[in-house]
Amino acid sequence: MKLIEIAKALGGSVVGDETIEVTRPVDPARAAGAGDLAIAIDKSALRALKTSKARAAVIADGAAVPEGKLDAYIVAGRPRTALAEISVLFDVPVERAPGIHPNASVAGDAELGKGVTVGAGSSVCAGAKIGTGTIITENVTIGNGARIGKNCLIHPGVRVAHRVVIGDGAILHPNAVIGADGFSYTTPKRSNFESAKLTGRIESTNEELIRVNSLGTVILGKDVEVGANSSIDRGTLKDTTVGNGTKIDNQVQIGHNVQIGRNCMICAQVGIAGSAVIGDGVVLAGKVGVADHVDVGDNSVIGAGSGLHTKVPPNSIMYGYPAMPMTEAAMHWSHMRRLGDLFKDVDKLKEAAEKDEKEKGE
Amino acid sequence: MKLIEIAKALGGSVVGDETIEVTRPVDPARAAGAGDLAIAIDKSALRALKTSKARAAVIADGAAVPEGKLDAYIVAGRPRTALAEISVLFDVPVERAPGIHPNASVAGDAELGKGVTVGAGSSVCAGAKIGTGTIITENVTIGNGARIGKNCLIHPGVRVAHRVVIGDGAILHPNAVIGADGFSYTTPKRSNFESAKLTGRIESTNEELIRVNSLGTVILGKDVEVGANSSIDRGTLKDTTVGNGTKIDNQVQIGHNVQIGRNCMICAQVGIAGSAVIGDGVVLAGKVGVADHVDVGDNSVIGAGSGLHTKVPPNSIMYGYPAMPMTEAAMHWSHMRRLGDLFKDVDKLKEAAEKDEKEKGE
Amino acid sequence: MKLIEIAKALGGSVVGDETIEVTRPVDPARAAGAGDLAIAIDKSALRALKTSKARAAVIADGAAVPEGKLDAYIVAGRPRTALAEISVLFDVPVERAPGIHPNASVAGDAELGKGVTVGAGSSVCAGAKIGTGTIITENVTIGNGARIGKNCLIHPGVRVAHRVVIGDGAILHPNAVIGADGFSYTTPKRSNFESAKLTGRIESTNEELIRVNSLGTVILGKDVEVGANSSIDRGTLKDTTVGNGTKIDNQVQIGHNVQIGRNCMICAQVGIAGSAVIGDGVVLAGKVGVADHVDVGDNSVIGAGSGLHTKVPPNSIMYGYPAMPMTEAAMHWSHMRRLGDLFKDVDKLKEAAEKDEKEKGE
Repeated sequence: MKLIEIAKALGGSVVGDETIEVTRPVDPARAAGAGDLAIAIDKSALRALKTSKARAAVIADGAAVPEGKLDAYIVAGRPRTALAEISVLFDVPVERAPGIHPNASVAGDAELGKGVTVGAGSSVCAGAKIGTGTIITENVTIGNGARIGKNCLIHPGVRVAHRVVIGDGAILHPNAVIGADGFSYTTPKRSNFESAKLTGRIESTNEELIRVNSLGTVILGKDVEVGANSSIDRGTLKDTTVGNGTKIDNQVQIGHNVQIGRNCMICAQVGIAGSAVIGDGVVLAGKVGVADHVDVGDNSVIGAGSGLHTKVPPNSIMYGYPAMPMTEAAMHWSHMRRLGDLFKDVDKLKEAAEKDEKEKGE
Repeated sequence: MKLIEIAKALGGSVVGDETIEVTRPVDPARAAGAGDLAIAIDKSALRALKTSKARAAVIADGAAVPEGKLDAYIVAGRPRTALAEISVLFDVPVERAPGIHPNASVAGDAELGKGVTVGAGSSVCAGAKIGTGTIITENVTIGNGARIGKNCLIHPGVRVAHRVVIGDGAILHPNAVIGADGFSYTTPKRSNFESAKLTGRIESTNEELIRVNSLGTVILGKDVEVGANSSIDRGTLKDTTVGNGTKIDNQVQIGHNVQIGRNCMICAQVGIAGSAVIGDGVVLAGKVGVADHVDVGDNSVIGAGSGLHTKVPPNSIMYGYPAMPMTEAAMHWSHMRRLGDLFKDVDKLKEAAEKDEKEKGE
Repeated sequence: MKLIEIAKALGGSVVGDETIEVTRPVDPARAAGAGDLAIAIDKSALRALKTSKARAAVIADGAAVPEGKLDAYIVAGRPRTALAEISVLFDVPVERAPGIHPNASVAGDAELGKGVTVGAGSSVCAGAKIGTGTIITENVTIGNGARIGKNCLIHPGVRVAHRVVIGDGAILHPNAVIGADGFSYTTPKRSNFESAKLTGRIESTNEELIRVNSLGTVILGKDVEVGANSSIDRGTLKDTTVGNGTKIDNQVQIGHNVQIGRNCMICAQVGIAGSAVIGDGVVLAGKVGVADHVDVGDNSVIGAGSGLHTKVPPNSIMYGYPAMPMTEAAMHWSHMRRLGDLFKDVDKLKEAAEKDEKEKGE
């Protein structure tokens, strides 16, 4: 691709020879010379450009380009989104011929839109509906009565259970599970778990765990992504829902009845327990745990590894286990680091007090 | 379904018109009017009933029903289990015709009981035995010589490895893996991990990791459930076992040689390391980690996100990382919150002491 | 197998009747008598030997064998690796006939080496290359242009995405996902996450999350193992890499661009965020979290449940959330346990100071 073409796509301009051809975008440190386009939009990449073998680069407007190193460079018009734009320009998506692979199994009453692909080993069960342009790759299962939107990409090994609804433009990554049963049981007598909560003691035994079936389903909005090996359980009496534009990373667990808003980022290995409510634009960093029935307000950002046990107001920044507002957490850790000094100070005060006491006694 | 029929199933009675027909159980807040049955057994749902559009409801005995709102209501005979009973009454299980789907692969010497279903894309390998009435859905793999009990439900994408034994009535959720190899290696010389444990310093390098094969298998008791994307590893010299009635949520990891008792609840994203022993009736809340060889006593309840590193006596309530008895943990967090005050107090005492010292010197 | 044969394989010798036949290696506690070989190499197993029904055992050189209990025993020549050697001797690997199962789907232009197995329901997509002797079991997906080395074992449900490269001798456990897209998005304006980082406050909303495609792939070295339900994401501009001999347990999440060295042990439920760099011989215990761009030095050992947020020098032993050097962590927990006493001490000092103050005033 010529630099000028890339510059146009990035809403930017070329300084130097705009006819130079490049074939792959790379980190400056990995550039091997002609043909490579060093992506040096952020500061650390820009520094790396100084010692790079790159002959062409993309930089942010106003950035200081190392002298005499480059044959040409693109000044990105929208630096914030330039990496995304470049990743689209140079993407080589897997080509799949539309139609049903001979080794796929599609139920007689399933409805497939125009241009739908069903890959080898995949099963589309009775009553399922698949929207126009959707690609179901290999070894996928679409359950009875599930409804998949238009232009979705469903990667190998995904399990969409019965009656689940997936919005247009969804990307479901390999081995994700949408619509397994919720984890919900009752006990004939008070359970040890209830006993612990109510009395602070264990005064009973779980002699039997009686299953509560999940009568609800899962509904994903438009443009949702669900990561590899993630799972979203169906609701008990209502549906588990995920809002438009929300992105879910790998190995995320979303319990029954959970309601998630729009444009959230749910990072890897997050666990959200049953009936929690997550607002719009919320960011849950890696490994965050959200307890059942907890409400997380819009736009909140929760730090990696945090455990949320109580309601979080909108626009909060929380951190820690159990989670605290970020400023408190910072204070807390500063205290922690100074604990050793505190013990020493108190020891000195005690010694001095004892000495005083002795002197008084004398 | 008529209210009187539901009341009978719940061991209860109807107040009002018992011939009213309802078609779905719902949360009071979601009731749309006739045809909906509001489930208002717990206190918060009962409150919600006041502003609900429900015309019919299920309540616990003795609960105060809002005046003039309902045409009729059911008083549940067994409130603790009513939700489970309702979820059975209204469940619409996926229908699957018995028999082997043409796109399934069943080994010639596999033994299938009466009424067994093997769905599209599923593989039943050599020597496997499947009990009467068991449903193997789509895209499942049953390994060589595995034995599956009667009336099991095996969801899409489940992997049951060679020689694994699954008891009657098991429900295995999508993409669960039963019987992968344990994570066990030795090193020709002392490993850095051993060095760390023994000396507190790193004095060696892992030049090679030598695999220990898993000669054992996994044995699940009766009525066990295993959640989506969960994994249970086979044992090294013995079998990994899970007792009757134990329920395992999604994304749970159970290491080699682990022994789990009966009627446990193992919540999502729990990890149990190799050779740990979990008693009967134990509840491990979400994201709990249990270290290798740790013993957790019967009926213990371990709070979400806790890390267990040492033996836990029966009937314990533990919390935190590292885990402490709940009462200690509560005390601990109370101390934490007051640390800032403590620093201030000590600063004041130091100032006072310095002043005293000065005065004495004068 | 005769004891003498086993002794030879272990580089050891037999004391007693070397012609005794045994059929299975067991823990001393589980030995039922003749035919069982008790493995009593470590101290606790040696103790268990005293009350064992075992008639034959394997012990370490110099260990004190209980008098009169055994008919014969093997003194292992290499005790450290004896368990691994025994596990190879007694292993019963699953036999699979080479060749393509009639229910498998192999693209016309895929290249399969000699003796390759492709099991029932598996799909090998266009342009993929599979090395000699590799076993692809059931219900596996090998994406377009993927390259699999020689003598690999790919368990059921594994997803190897397009263009992924797997080295010789790899073992991929059930439902592992290699090469899903990275979790990477940009926002047109400053995101709430950036706002939190830069200002400590939430001053913006995520109105849109723009996808960054993953142009790179995943490259696994030789003799790598990847556990059940684990996932390794492809890189953005470069490849995610795992070095020779590294072993990855179940439910491990490895983000885009991550670089992992040789002979590492990455235990279950570890999460490594994007662009982190893990050195050679590193041990990450269960549930460790490594933040994005964090560098973990060679041979470091990180304790279970720790959260790494900053660079870790080589040969470090770290523990805690947030992680500290082990010695600091031990000190820290000792302080924690003594906090209650500290509060009491300070209360006493305060009382004494008040009393003094009063006395002075009088």
